[in-house]
Amino acid sequence: MDERPIGVFDSGLGGLTVVKEIKKILPNERIIYLGDTARVPYGTRSKEAVTEFSLQNITFLEKKNVKCIVIACNTSSALAYSKIKAFTSLPTFEVIAPGVKAALSSGYIKRIGVIATRSTIGSHAYKKAILKRSPKTSVLEIACPLFVPLIEEGELKGKLIGYAVDKYLNPLLEEKIDTLILGCTHYPLIRSQIAAKLKRVRIVDSGKTVAKELSVYLKLKEKDLLASKNGKPKDEYFVTDLTDRFLNIAEVFLGKKLKGSLRKISLE
Amino acid sequence: MDERPIGVFDSGLGGLTVVKEIKKILPNERIIYLGDTARVPYGTRSKEAVTEFSLQNITFLEKKNVKCIVIACNTSSALAYSKIKAFTSLPTFEVIAPGVKAALSSGYIKRIGVIATRSTIGSHAYKKAILKRSPKTSVLEIACPLFVPLIEEGELKGKLIGYAVDKYLNPLLEEKIDTLILGCTHYPLIRSQIAAKLKRVRIVDSGKTVAKELSVYLKLKEKDLLASKNGKPKDEYFVTDLTDRFLNIAEVFLGKKLKGSLRKISLE
Repeated sequence: MDERPIGVFDSGLGGLTVVKEIKKILPNERIIYLGDTARVPYGTRSKEAVTEFSLQNITFLEKKNVKCIVIACNTSSALAYSKIKAFTSLPTFEVIAPGVKAALSSGYIKRIGVIATRSTIGSHAYKKAILKRSPKTSVLEIACPLFVPLIEEGELKGKLIGYAVDKYLNPLLEEKIDTLILGCTHYPLIRSQIAAKLKRVRIVDSGKTVAKELSVYLKLKEKDLLASKNGKPKDEYFVTDLTDRFLNIAEVFLGKKLKGSLRKISLE
Repeated sequence: MDERPIGVFDSGLGGLTVVKEIKKILPNERIIYLGDTARVPYGTRSKEAVTEFSLQNITFLEKKNVKCIVIACNTSSALAYSKIKAFTSLPTFEVIAPGVKAALSSGYIKRIGVIATRSTIGSHAYKKAILKRSPKTSVLEIACPLFVPLIEEGELKGKLIGYAVDKYLNPLLEEKIDTLILGCTHYPLIRSQIAAKLKRVRIVDSGKTVAKELSVYLKLKEKDLLASKNGKPKDEYFVTDLTDRFLNIAEVFLGKKLKGSLRKISLE
């Protein structure tokens, strides 16, 4: 038994979709969540900036005595993972490899689409990871920079998100992809809009997959790392900026009321 | 004569629309521009965060030995101006008062609309400033949080910006405003879209007005603060994050090629 919490960080609130999946399959685990809401979004920033911010997030979580860290942000996973691994001795889970594994799991795949932020796509992290495992796969990467602001503004249905979906996904439709990776932890919130556009395309959400990997890791290690089943774990949520709208948006991402403490902190 | 440069800062690139106006009427002045592109946008952040970031920007410009500072950001002007004034001894120009003065200048005005970021609108800085000068004016404030990301993504025409304009401006149309203040330095880039929607409404851009105020100040003080006319001034542009897309977007905002040096710096 290991009662230490699991640390999860994201540039902002998107990572709460990953927390939601972790809590589904690991309900006894305590979560320490850090959202860098003072500097969200990461997806339009440089590798240098995203790496600097990510290492500050890791330092914060290390001080909270977490047993492992989930990078619930695709941009940070794509741009900063190698630096993060060298920086911390804690077991660290990123979201790209699990997404790729899930996308390639269904046997013979010819055409995979990847949608993500501009920085994630610019890194070609998904394309490289897919081609390493399956060199003959065709991969089409599309940056969708307006999805994050639209989702953060609650534009989950209606004309605005509809036009953005058309704009970004039409090329994937034309390329006749058979699998789509949601390469940003915000995108599960518009999954139904995406599915309606890309009919008969299998949609892979790395939040679900990383939660499963985390569960396997905690259960399978020689030393049992799972928390005990005593009582309900008290989660803690930290943000680097707090506005009036926070709770409303957070609950949309989490899919329920945010239970646990919420505090604004400074990383600098 | 005062050869020191004029310091201008913004959360990101929107302030370049103000630089454009300053350079039109004060072509001999040297500009030091700081865009906090690692933390843009300010318009969705708290007063506390915007104030902290703004004071860091001021400190940077002070070290550059500027003769005065233009806060080319409405959110910073609305949320942090009183703290900025107490913090620096340099003459500091914000963009709200000039915009209000321009809006009220055309005689009898009944109905003024203000469009701005969520944080600027939440501060009611424009409404308070208008009612202080003209208590009987009717003021309708509308937050347009998606305009900044749409503009930064180059969505200056087409369906996406069209729907966003409809969404945000329909209430102003219904209220039959006669004057509209563009309360964000990004918005002049979609002025034609806004004008097409709000026909016969006078549009006020505070970038133009603050440039005029700055010019009057530099010319009228007992001690002449204007730079001499010797040669072309070498402007310097500083950003806190630099991506490949920077120059393209910067040139859209500036309305021409960015001349002068460009450097990434760290404020923290």
